[in-house]
Amino acid sequence: MHDIPGGIAAPLGFTAAGIHCGVKKAKKDLSLVYSSLPAVGAAVFTTNKVQAAPVLVDRLQLERSPSFRAILVNSGNANACTGDRGMEDAWAMVRATASALSIKEDEVLVSSTGVIGQYLPIAKIVTGAGQAVPLLMNEGTAAAEAIRTTDTFTKETAVECTLGGVTVRIGGMAKGSGMIAPNMATMLAFVTTDAKIDRDVLQHSTRLASDRSFNRISVDGDTSTNDMVLVLANGMAGNAPIDSVQHPFYEPFYRALEEVLIRLSKMIVMDGEGATKFIEIRMIGAATEAEAAQAARAVANSNLVKTAINGEDANWGRILAAVGYSGIDFDPAAVEIQFGDVPILRRKYAIDFSEEQAKAVLERKEIVITVNLNQGTASAVFWTCDLSQEYVAINANYRT
Amino acid sequence: MHDIPGGIAAPLGFTAAGIHCGVKKAKKDLSLVYSSLPAVGAAVFTTNKVQAAPVLVDRLQLERSPSFRAILVNSGNANACTGDRGMEDAWAMVRATASALSIKEDEVLVSSTGVIGQYLPIAKIVTGAGQAVPLLMNEGTAAAEAIRTTDTFTKETAVECTLGGVTVRIGGMAKGSGMIAPNMATMLAFVTTDAKIDRDVLQHSTRLASDRSFNRISVDGDTSTNDMVLVLANGMAGNAPIDSVQHPFYEPFYRALEEVLIRLSKMIVMDGEGATKFIEIRMIGAATEAEAAQAARAVANSNLVKTAINGEDANWGRILAAVGYSGIDFDPAAVEIQFGDVPILRRKYAIDFSEEQAKAVLERKEIVITVNLNQGTASAVFWTCDLSQEYVAINANYRT
Repeated sequence: MHDIPGGIAAPLGFTAAGIHCGVKKAKKDLSLVYSSLPAVGAAVFTTNKVQAAPVLVDRLQLERSPSFRAILVNSGNANACTGDRGMEDAWAMVRATASALSIKEDEVLVSSTGVIGQYLPIAKIVTGAGQAVPLLMNEGTAAAEAIRTTDTFTKETAVECTLGGVTVRIGGMAKGSGMIAPNMATMLAFVTTDAKIDRDVLQHSTRLASDRSFNRISVDGDTSTNDMVLVLANGMAGNAPIDSVQHPFYEPFYRALEEVLIRLSKMIVMDGEGATKFIEIRMIGAATEAEAAQAARAVANSNLVKTAINGEDANWGRILAAVGYSGIDFDPAAVEIQFGDVPILRRKYAIDFSEEQAKAVLERKEIVITVNLNQGTASAVFWTCDLSQEYVAINANYRT
Repeated sequence: MHDIPGGIAAPLGFTAAGIHCGVKKAKKDLSLVYSSLPAVGAAVFTTNKVQAAPVLVDRLQLERSPSFRAILVNSGNANACTGDRGMEDAWAMVRATASALSIKEDEVLVSSTGVIGQYLPIAKIVTGAGQAVPLLMNEGTAAAEAIRTTDTFTKETAVECTLGGVTVRIGGMAKGSGMIAPNMATMLAFVTTDAKIDRDVLQHSTRLASDRSFNRISVDGDTSTNDMVLVLANGMAGNAPIDSVQHPFYEPFYRALEEVLIRLSKMIVMDGEGATKFIEIRMIGAATEAEAAQAARAVANSNLVKTAINGEDANWGRILAAVGYSGIDFDPAAVEIQFGDVPILRRKYAIDFSEEQAKAVLERKEIVITVNLNQGTASAVFWTCDLSQEYVAINANYRT
């Protein structure tokens, strides 16, 4: 597996465009992804009870259509909590895309992100869909730019791997810059691949890889109204079809897909609103992977842990207390905590670190915190960022 | 029911003192509450798996002792994650108090709050216990001052009510100034009453009233290592004993106790670190009280809702989205939201408020947000505060 340029448009047969259509004042706000051949689709959607119109539309499309050729995404307006008119607008996005590309309506998926509870300026988006078509190209950056909201940088990546001598490409783009958990700043990710793979195997891979990437920066259930991960696979690489999880190509394909999703997840964390530090929580020595993830999530979501790291304060007590309220069963006196390579807490609450050593780790931009529960052999990794005063400033006046 | 002065020392037979013993640099850090007659005790403790030494000691004391006469509390150090030595230190606090007051060791409860993972300066506390005794008086303010950590004001209150012509007093003090949920800043509350009441009835009342007060600002399970509510009742008012929840005096006594706990809870919220606004979330029209509380909790704990209110931004979409991920079952299109008296969202996502009206409500210091789920007739109230840049500044450098 190695890096390739092109982002979401790197895989064979995929092109992309990103333009300004007028939802936002001046920045790019409309993204189009197109596959020259029909592609199978897989998706993971928000578990929020309040689901934005594009989520409802895509669920229907995925249920009844065997393949897809385009995704149209606008930023600046989430088309969420917009009732019947919101649904009409989302379908209008589908129709406009199908018409502009001369494809079938059931081959189109749509997505929106931005402010909740306002109607889309749908005429601008319909016009924009047509304007984007001649700009489609084998380069994903413009499309990745156009899905940004409070993102401070564009998130895209692409890799290629070899399956039985055949080169297969996977490209992706994402938006998301909120603290994500414990709240619901929207997270969108779009991935394309030219791998030949059955739809149900693609769906299985997408679910599993999302659980180990986006759900390791967010919290199942604490989701926005618009969150979605969409994956399209058009088979143009020509590999022998991956028709089951037992297929020898499944494992290398899955690893490459997971790598793309983890990279995009980490970019979202690094772009945490006001974040100054990237934090990796490694929960090891757990009884099960699920418990490891549950404990790591509690630490990663603790405002007090996040503010302490912002202040470069080796406040390990807040980490242990967060594990304590995470709901897992463990022996507090068995826990060991390490910041980078520096042991901070040993068994039986033994503490013998120098503040200087701890400070040296915490001054870094990327910090690994390892918590050993000493209960078993399972582990899970979570990624988060610190909580800064800047975060509050950004979120206090989001609409204005 | 009406207000009386004296705080925790208002009820007959109770005295209190608060001194500086040297855990902190200069501020009061040791609080002693004493009852001249033995009192029955009731308690609610943290549900965190990591329990501080004083919590473990008090659990034991309450299990084996029929009555209590004193509570010793230090601030500045939580005596949490301190292992065997921490337990020895907590018992040393018990012994020192018993010795200084010439009472039995099993008549003493202890409590600590402050930084986690450091050993108590126990010699100073032992000496302090003796120094506090001659300062005991019928005035609770010094004691309430001595339990503060990052609290910006002292939290105490007292009421009296009449049970069958007999005046009964309830006094209380509390500390807590963190955002509390979704994290674990410590919350301590101590309550005294001269009511005559059976121990099990007192325990029942304390659990129920805590659930409707402290657990409406915090989250069950997201608790600190040290949280506790202790209630002592010495019977000196001389009312006919409240020996069951069917007793005619139970209801007025419970209402007075709940009032004291709700007042203390609201003070904790008003003192939320860096808080500039007090927010009451009224979740109405729910199927059950439990669901109402669950949905209200999700709204109250949302960083995005709290920052929006900090910025006086009528971002109702974040409120609806928080209800959406709370886990309750409801129809999003049926929800109505009101800020103060201003309807913001009506059924079917109808929006017709003026930004000016909404702004006028949000500019206030105290804001009531009413969410009507239109699913049933149950309701629950939650109290929270906004999330400001100051909160981050306070928590980034707590230990230093």
